[in-house]
Amino acid sequence: MKTPLLIVNFKAYREALGREGLKLARLCQEASWEMSKSVAVAPSMVDLASIAQQTKIPVLAQHCNNLPAGSFTGWVPVEALKASGASGTILNHSERRLELSDLEALIRKCESFDLETVVCADNLFVARACAALNPTFVAVEPPELIGGDISVTAAKPEVVSGTVEAIADVNKDVKVLCGAGVKTGEDVAKALELGTEGVLLSSGIVKAKSPKQALEDLLSGLGS
Amino acid sequence: MKTPLLIVNFKAYREALGREGLKLARLCQEASWEMSKSVAVAPSMVDLASIAQQTKIPVLAQHCNNLPAGSFTGWVPVEALKASGASGTILNHSERRLELSDLEALIRKCESFDLETVVCADNLFVARACAALNPTFVAVEPPELIGGDISVTAAKPEVVSGTVEAIADVNKDVKVLCGAGVKTGEDVAKALELGTEGVLLSSGIVKAKSPKQALEDLLSGLGS
Amino acid sequence: MKTPLLIVNFKAYREALGREGLKLARLCQEASWEMSKSVAVAPSMVDLASIAQQTKIPVLAQHCNNLPAGSFTGWVPVEALKASGASGTILNHSERRLELSDLEALIRKCESFDLETVVCADNLFVARACAALNPTFVAVEPPELIGGDISVTAAKPEVVSGTVEAIADVNKDVKVLCGAGVKTGEDVAKALELGTEGVLLSSGIVKAKSPKQALEDLLSGLGS
Amino acid sequence: MKTPLLIVNFKAYREALGREGLKLARLCQEASWEMSKSVAVAPSMVDLASIAQQTKIPVLAQHCNNLPAGSFTGWVPVEALKASGASGTILNHSERRLELSDLEALIRKCESFDLETVVCADNLFVARACAALNPTFVAVEPPELIGGDISVTAAKPEVVSGTVEAIADVNKDVKVLCGAGVKTGEDVAKALELGTEGVLLSSGIVKAKSPKQALEDLLSGLGS
Repeated sequence: MKTPLLIVNFKAYREALGREGLKLARLCQEASWEMSKSVAVAPSMVDLASIAQQTKIPVLAQHCNNLPAGSFTGWVPVEALKASGASGTILNHSERRLELSDLEALIRKCESFDLETVVCADNLFVARACAALNPTFVAVEPPELIGGDISVTAAKPEVVSGTVEAIADVNKDVKVLCGAGVKTGEDVAKALELGTEGVLLSSGIVKAKSPKQALEDLLSGLGS
Repeated sequence: MKTPLLIVNFKAYREALGREGLKLARLCQEASWEMSKSVAVAPSMVDLASIAQQTKIPVLAQHCNNLPAGSFTGWVPVEALKASGASGTILNHSERRLELSDLEALIRKCESFDLETVVCADNLFVARACAALNPTFVAVEPPELIGGDISVTAAKPEVVSGTVEAIADVNKDVKVLCGAGVKTGEDVAKALELGTEGVLLSSGIVKAKSPKQALEDLLSGLGS
Repeated sequence: MKTPLLIVNFKAYREALGREGLKLARLCQEASWEMSKSVAVAPSMVDLASIAQQTKIPVLAQHCNNLPAGSFTGWVPVEALKASGASGTILNHSERRLELSDLEALIRKCESFDLETVVCADNLFVARACAALNPTFVAVEPPELIGGDISVTAAKPEVVSGTVEAIADVNKDVKVLCGAGVKTGEDVAKALELGTEGVLLSSGIVKAKSPKQALEDLLSGLGS
Repeated sequence: MKTPLLIVNFKAYREALGREGLKLARLCQEASWEMSKSVAVAPSMVDLASIAQQTKIPVLAQHCNNLPAGSFTGWVPVEALKASGASGTILNHSERRLELSDLEALIRKCESFDLETVVCADNLFVARACAALNPTFVAVEPPELIGGDISVTAAKPEVVSGTVEAIADVNKDVKVLCGAGVKTGEDVAKALELGTEGVLLSSGIVKAKSPKQALEDLLSGLGS
């Protein structure tokens, strides 16, 4: 995925399930194309193939399981993501945390399937550990700010810049994103200024009165 | 779903992911229509909406989570199944077991969303417990026979008929299916003879040299 | 364990860990002996052997795992309970729920080790399912009343009596307990009157200003 | 705990449960005292307080849970370890893996309770991530060698020395242990030579014909 980057996590929000999810993904695609900015979407797990087939921007899974393809009813191996047309996956979101060893194994397996990995970290220690695992991206999201009204870039700028530094210290190849409470283009611009290569956000778009307007405002802060 | 019934569980088999899964679902649809038999498919989790949108036979999820729609990255609430166009869900498969209280809550929630529930049980005690929870179907599958070459109807006919009786004893409203090792029309006919209203199967079709032939043979045993 | 019965669940309350837990267990033993009533204690997991070795009333585990003795670091198989001197175990507490199939397997394994099972159920459907699994006791505890100030016997007497009937309907061999919010001898007497053979309680004793007084009051309601 | 160090993990082996576990712990204590070597034991979870109270060498838990003391039936918070008399805990053993964020939180909480942490890692990436979390020890154990007859120090000496280097690169404060297949004093000596400060082992003592002899042989390799 090209950076600077905005990733829209649909979570399991009612407003972004099924047909509503497809509409939102198309809206993200249009805004991405019109404004020439890099946007990726992470739809609800059961909508993944549907949305990947019907859009052309990068589509990420929200999670997957450290199991091979095979006799595993109800599980989502990396092979299922690849076959769905996804470009990568979020891993270890604070709402869907992974065992350390599974996280490491999934990053390796995604590499071998040419899928990008966005690994979430809830504090500085965890961010350093994630960087040591060599994913494509580490996204730092203080859990207490997720879904809230104050952007991490305003509430805890030093956490963002400190994480950028700490990650560079452990592994210079890892790109850093931030998230939690990001709502405006200004928040996004601040995130880039603090050293990240983009933001991961959800309710700021999914629950916005006008997702289209919210998206345009957010992308205006994304640089170029 | 109309009975007698054949449910094809795609599991996470490589042969039934993404485009291959869609092909297999369409093949099931054609056979169902041509032979006028009731067939449902349970595709890989991430293919659920895609296949539900592109076929007209009943589509089931393989699993779901006891959480509300909302801020739950990577989870699959009942609302997501409904929005995807699914007709119901498998629950408590021996490869994806549920906590008892979640299983009960999911059956209640599926009822309220008008989704059918196929609850798997691995022995007689568990089958009785499942029946007490009042799902649409209980599917009895001895785990040691799953994916094998000997049909439960041949290896343990008394388990099947015993379960049918035991379930009727606890709750007469619950329909019984059986599964594990089912490969031929004869196996299916035997399952109905033992008192079930259909079969749940997977590798017998997904891993067959000719899934189409396997399906036609299996459906020939399904009565009418 | 003899009925009518009072089971004191120490949970992981700070007031009942380590030496404090041993003191509380001894206090339960004294009250049991002085008032000639049947009392069992369920100490913190890591205190189980210590308390079982240093008291003579029945000691229960709070939980265990469906795994054999062997190379399973950090897990608690039934064999470990037996070797610790425990008389049985609580299973499927609403704070530590079990997969249905593990619950069933653990009940069978406890039977074979001559350990009693107290299986918790959070509603009527779950209670019926538990009864079908044939444990020694089913304890009905509406989760919304656990740790609260209103006894289930006052807030929802019909849940208690309804569960007693429903369980008898499924399996006459199962004894019924109730819990949640039980604080006084009157609550206990009411529980017996509603058809149970005892109560399961925790904060009513562990967090009481005087656990000794609380215990004596509670036991006064236990009949004889 | 003083290094060089031998940690004996009792796992849930039948040979080390209950009274047998206490005997084994005492045998470890005697050998430690007689040979003036540092030995710690990690007994079965339910025996923890019993063995900590009845021995004087360091006793470790095999696992614990990232929950506060309180209303958490069946869980083991750090407070319960402290109250039991334990000196620390193994965390993230390959048989009992932890979510990354729980692992981090538990290391922090153990620090604040003055408990030492021995974090297991199954490969080099995971070892680096663990080192970034700043535990007292990282123990590298290739899972395919656990419980086997070939010592990691013979089968994969480069894994051991490579891990020692990689960990020093991330965090110089972390001490390194190794484990898996360690059976003789020679294996232990080799482990120290490769740069570790001790070994974590289990079946080599617990399943030995003569645990006493095995222990004496192993300790002979521990330097002084």
